[in-house]
Amino acid sequence: MKKGLLEVGYAVPRQDAWTKVTGEEKYAADYYPENLLWAGAKRAGVPHGRILQVDVAAAQALPGVVAVLTRKDVPGTNRQGIVHKDQPVLAGDRVRHRGEAVALVLAENREVLAAALALIRVELEPLPGVFDPEEALEPAAPQLHERGNVLVQAKIEKGNVGEAFSACSVVVEETFEVPFQEHGFLETENGVAWQEPDGHLVMIVSTQAPFRDRFEIAHALGLEMGSIRVISPYLGGGFGGKDGATVQCLLALAALHAHGRPVKMWWDREESFVAGYKRHGARLYYRAGANADGKLHALHCRLYYDSGAYAHLGGEILELGMEHAGGPYRLPHTLIEGWCVYTNNPIGGAMRGFGVCQVSFAFERVMDLLAAGLGLDPLDFRLKNALQRGDKNCAGVTLVHSTGMVPCLEALHRHALWTGRENWKQGAGPCKKRGVGLAAVFNAMGYGRGLPDSAIAKLELTAAGKFRIYSSVPDMGQGNATAFLQMAGEILGQDASRLELVPPDTARSLPSGSSSASRTTYTFGNALIRACQEMKEKLCHRAALVLMADEERGFALVPGKVRHLLSGRDLDLEFLAGLLPEADRSSVGQFVMPVAQDVPDTGKEFFIGFPHVFFSYAAHLAYVEVDELTGKIEVHDYLALTEGGRVINPQSFEQQVHGAVAQGIGYALMEQVILEQGEILNPNFANYLLPTSLDLPDIESLAVETVEPTGPFGMKGIGEVGVNAPLPAIAAALEDAFGVRLTRSPLTAIRVLERLVQTS
Amino acid sequence: MKKGLLEVGYAVPRQDAWTKVTGEEKYAADYYPENLLWAGAKRAGVPHGRILQVDVAAAQALPGVVAVLTRKDVPGTNRQGIVHKDQPVLAGDRVRHRGEAVALVLAENREVLAAALALIRVELEPLPGVFDPEEALEPAAPQLHERGNVLVQAKIEKGNVGEAFSACSVVVEETFEVPFQEHGFLETENGVAWQEPDGHLVMIVSTQAPFRDRFEIAHALGLEMGSIRVISPYLGGGFGGKDGATVQCLLALAALHAHGRPVKMWWDREESFVAGYKRHGARLYYRAGANADGKLHALHCRLYYDSGAYAHLGGEILELGMEHAGGPYRLPHTLIEGWCVYTNNPIGGAMRGFGVCQVSFAFERVMDLLAAGLGLDPLDFRLKNALQRGDKNCAGVTLVHSTGMVPCLEALHRHALWTGRENWKQGAGPCKKRGVGLAAVFNAMGYGRGLPDSAIAKLELTAAGKFRIYSSVPDMGQGNATAFLQMAGEILGQDASRLELVPPDTARSLPSGSSSASRTTYTFGNALIRACQEMKEKLCHRAALVLMADEERGFALVPGKVRHLLSGRDLDLEFLAGLLPEADRSSVGQFVMPVAQDVPDTGKEFFIGFPHVFFSYAAHLAYVEVDELTGKIEVHDYLALTEGGRVINPQSFEQQVHGAVAQGIGYALMEQVILEQGEILNPNFANYLLPTSLDLPDIESLAVETVEPTGPFGMKGIGEVGVNAPLPAIAAALEDAFGVRLTRSPLTAIRVLERLVQTS
Repeated sequence: MKKGLLEVGYAVPRQDAWTKVTGEEKYAADYYPENLLWAGAKRAGVPHGRILQVDVAAAQALPGVVAVLTRKDVPGTNRQGIVHKDQPVLAGDRVRHRGEAVALVLAENREVLAAALALIRVELEPLPGVFDPEEALEPAAPQLHERGNVLVQAKIEKGNVGEAFSACSVVVEETFEVPFQEHGFLETENGVAWQEPDGHLVMIVSTQAPFRDRFEIAHALGLEMGSIRVISPYLGGGFGGKDGATVQCLLALAALHAHGRPVKMWWDREESFVAGYKRHGARLYYRAGANADGKLHALHCRLYYDSGAYAHLGGEILELGMEHAGGPYRLPHTLIEGWCVYTNNPIGGAMRGFGVCQVSFAFERVMDLLAAGLGLDPLDFRLKNALQRGDKNCAGVTLVHSTGMVPCLEALHRHALWTGRENWKQGAGPCKKRGVGLAAVFNAMGYGRGLPDSAIAKLELTAAGKFRIYSSVPDMGQGNATAFLQMAGEILGQDASRLELVPPDTARSLPSGSSSASRTTYTFGNALIRACQEMKEKLCHRAALVLMADEERGFALVPGKVRHLLSGRDLDLEFLAGLLPEADRSSVGQFVMPVAQDVPDTGKEFFIGFPHVFFSYAAHLAYVEVDELTGKIEVHDYLALTEGGRVINPQSFEQQVHGAVAQGIGYALMEQVILEQGEILNPNFANYLLPTSLDLPDIESLAVETVEPTGPFGMKGIGEVGVNAPLPAIAAALEDAFGVRLTRSPLTAIRVLERLVQTS
Repeated sequence: MKKGLLEVGYAVPRQDAWTKVTGEEKYAADYYPENLLWAGAKRAGVPHGRILQVDVAAAQALPGVVAVLTRKDVPGTNRQGIVHKDQPVLAGDRVRHRGEAVALVLAENREVLAAALALIRVELEPLPGVFDPEEALEPAAPQLHERGNVLVQAKIEKGNVGEAFSACSVVVEETFEVPFQEHGFLETENGVAWQEPDGHLVMIVSTQAPFRDRFEIAHALGLEMGSIRVISPYLGGGFGGKDGATVQCLLALAALHAHGRPVKMWWDREESFVAGYKRHGARLYYRAGANADGKLHALHCRLYYDSGAYAHLGGEILELGMEHAGGPYRLPHTLIEGWCVYTNNPIGGAMRGFGVCQVSFAFERVMDLLAAGLGLDPLDFRLKNALQRGDKNCAGVTLVHSTGMVPCLEALHRHALWTGRENWKQGAGPCKKRGVGLAAVFNAMGYGRGLPDSAIAKLELTAAGKFRIYSSVPDMGQGNATAFLQMAGEILGQDASRLELVPPDTARSLPSGSSSASRTTYTFGNALIRACQEMKEKLCHRAALVLMADEERGFALVPGKVRHLLSGRDLDLEFLAGLLPEADRSSVGQFVMPVAQDVPDTGKEFFIGFPHVFFSYAAHLAYVEVDELTGKIEVHDYLALTEGGRVINPQSFEQQVHGAVAQGIGYALMEQVILEQGEILNPNFANYLLPTSLDLPDIESLAVETVEPTGPFGMKGIGEVGVNAPLPAIAAALEDAFGVRLTRSPLTAIRVLERLVQTS
């Protein structure tokens, strides 16, 4: 089999697959420089309290301990946070969640580190905690921050909801509740850092945002941003949990006290649970109405997202939830109210779906209830109301880009799993019930208005005549690195032997934002295309000079060569590279994502990132069988139809969809961070269950292609959209099977049995 | 289900489907103007002869006969033909094939017409005929034309074949023979024409090339081209058989004698067989060699194409065959010799595959023989040698555009039908043998160098605020009309209710060449995109003026409106159209297809159309079962993997592939024009067998997408490529099943039994 082709549209195997399966590829966690020190944090262990004293004397005295640092050793603002910088690097006088770091230890090895951390005594005056976002809104609730417990309160309003409900022939009302979800990446938060003799900090870290990290560290520790270099190898998973500072500031602080020695910090699984970011738990109150003609008419919802102790991206996550709260449907009258509220729970943060997972559960179940009330087929009802290009969405923004909800639903309508669903249901064995559920979902792409979503790509022709892409957006496993190689291969006409990719390194690549928001391949890809086109033009121009051709016409790049087609003469790239000075061997492309031109007169409470104008769409179908005796839920078949513009790589596309559906099925059936007074009762994979391959059905993924003309080769990002559908689709299938409705997730066997007992 | 969306990438149902199935859509054959006359031709009935006299007196005297015309009534050159104008409208002193027209009758109705034709007496002195292209090359052969019997003789040469064979470790040699094939379209050749009072000729005709038709008619009849208007409704099939004059010149001549009355000419099935164009029969001598390392090394072939009595596109068809004679493979040494030779057989002409069908049989079977000689798997052998972008093809042209042979073969390699083939073969029942065969094929797109492949598209905003596309390339059933509506809908943001398409009409649309050469959607689509973009800019500009917006930014077209996104204000298209004078409501886009920049130092004997630079690729797999007792061949399963850049409409794509495969299976198993001394022995569908749905397997079509950056939304044409593979794939499967090799097609039961007898 030929392995060499790198062209767009082609199912190129992941270029990092071989080095990863052989162990050759180094993740951040694999770096063990010589003369290594280990750093670790002492965690508060109480959900809310005033720090009276941190006694580090015993720890400091332990042989092998290099330093024990507390708040007073933090030279800068001591504050981190992507939008609101409210999170201390090391707590000063107060802790707001159990995982908060109060001291930092540097030690010669992990054993000494553990012993030293155990010797640190934190004296705390416990404060009353609050663990529910609605309770935290009560006037009498303990106040976590100076400005109170409300991180963001906002409203999206369109039409006149008050009057609209009275015109509806069916109105439904329901409350939904979803728990915190853990990212559960294979490679937990980690990095290694050292200070160069000239004072520069170098850091190899598992991060989704190396360029932003520099700013976080500089701000928190009072450093010059230019003195910090962040290198981001391939990540062993991210899902949003490495978008924002995890180990970065602590590690940088440690490096400043390591006398030039490298320091490694690597959270173990339990620390990752306790201190890492989670998908926000939320409670969602929905009321929706439709007309007798089957058209959605009104929606009023109130969304409460639990931000945990600090802001992180809570406001922006609520915002995206609100922007998607009406679903991918035409809705003339909407009132969407949202609160993102501080509590003493672990910190909520970015996670694939970014606030949309939560509302997808609600709006899709409400669609089913309305369809039932109207006596309509749930798919027909969705088709009747699905957004099309030219429509305004629930935030009042006109959809002027590719809008694939209808094609996805129509493809579902034609699919054998849809047309054959009744047959399958009738085949249930004794004590089994079968149901089929569908969900139509969408997910915005990009940062949205107010925060330029841009990328700057650098490309180099090496002295050896190869092309080197300087990526500045990490590949956390989603495959963007291979997509970039394909784009470059497509334009530069080269095969794999002539193309290489340098993972992000703030000293070598150029700022391009984070790997997040389904924007990575879209934004950096567009910048890279420009860099490749500029390089191609440059090389044809230089070759014309060398070959003494009268004009630039009729040149082409072919593997290893520039060919003058008109004369048949070739120039080897090595030879051409040798003629060019280094400064003439690189090109740079830049790109800023288009934004919504509509400026809706709503949502003005959002700081940044509202509204969005690009969305990907998906329609999913779940075949579910339930055991009436045990409540055990089995997903038998699963179909995911996804619209994300054009497909760059069918294999990567399918892998992204499979991953998102697997994570979504985990969210639907088993994953929840169980909290009691802010304490995680299941901080490991023995108690926190992730689906394994045995828990998952065969997932059929089909691309429903449209064209996004602004996208690189017509694509949009689809890394997130697939995670939003499994929960509502499986919940719908359960209701279809049994007639019982679960509105609280995960949809466990116990909850099924409880409802069966209640209804029998 | 929503029917309104017209966007690119989406499986939009054919927009003409409804009017076609309800009979509302009018084909040319459906036009019956008032006061109609019928025209018909008297055919020669002998393959070769000198005309002594054409006695029309009895016919002329028949009541109801309006006119009887012969050669002397033809006012112009009396010559038609796309490249070489060697074909008379009405024969003068000589006939060269049995179907040649010698007189033309106009009558009040079909009955009188038939009677009059029977009354015409043609006195002929028979001349010796020649019916085999190689025999026609003998010096002693009867000479059909002044310049002899050779229409084109050409050579494509690369490397040094003479020496190369001695370096090969395996050399194979084989001769292949393929018959004439009939197009077999549902709607046979027909048209209706009349002369306007001002002398203009108007013609509604089933044609693939309305603009070229005007030139053909004007040249043959000595008219001004501007005095002729050709209207081309949807065709009931074409396949190349309506690319070039069929009824056009005869019909125009009749109209000149009809005193302003409309005249209809409609060939019945037998006349269509006798007078219509056919796929060229051919004999192909192949010798090929490969190295021990499994690499193709040398090819020498001699190709003899039977042009029949006249040139039509015989030279260009031979040329395309020669350009494809080496297959989609890297071949350092090639000598491809070709002859297109006149005989007294029916006229060969354009047909889907255009000369490539013939050589595909040869080169793919030779690939199997070489693989067997080398002890290699036939798929691995093809993968090892498949052309990639940057390679030079067998004509010496560098492939700088999308080149999808490897992705197609790799997709086949992964497919369950490939991996499961041995299992299937072992399941053969008693007296049955099973075999599996594959074929890798390609097909050029466009006219090639020397004949600009261009289109000019016109778009209009009607006074009613709809968009009207003036297509100038007929839709003969392949679905390009829907593709154009999708492209316009994509750019203009409109749904089906706002878009309409006017079929080609030389008085209303602009010249864009023919519907042929897999170039229709590519070339006209590119022109249309430009027209749509210009229209969009125009409307946004005019809307900005009307809305008194300070700048053009922030406008979008949404269904029925231009929206100023920045202010939320809308302008109805009807309103905007009302403000614009008619001259300001249209836009024109033009496009010329890129050509090969390589100018190979070979093939200089070709007049036009050499070389090509765009190709589509396909890999097919056939599962074939043969009955040992009867020789009956059944194709059980069929897989077609097709690369044609990006897909505009997955449904149309699949339909094109299904149609091509069906026609290719007919060509492989049953279709042949049986000729005896130039007479067709099976000139109807009772004797000439076309496959019905019962003869065809389920055909699985999968698109293997690459990106063709020059294509409209990344596409290339795929209407032809699929017809090239069934014959070699099924022949390979037969050899796999039995070990017997058929090198003459069609692969009938009789031929299987003959070989079984010979080898047993």
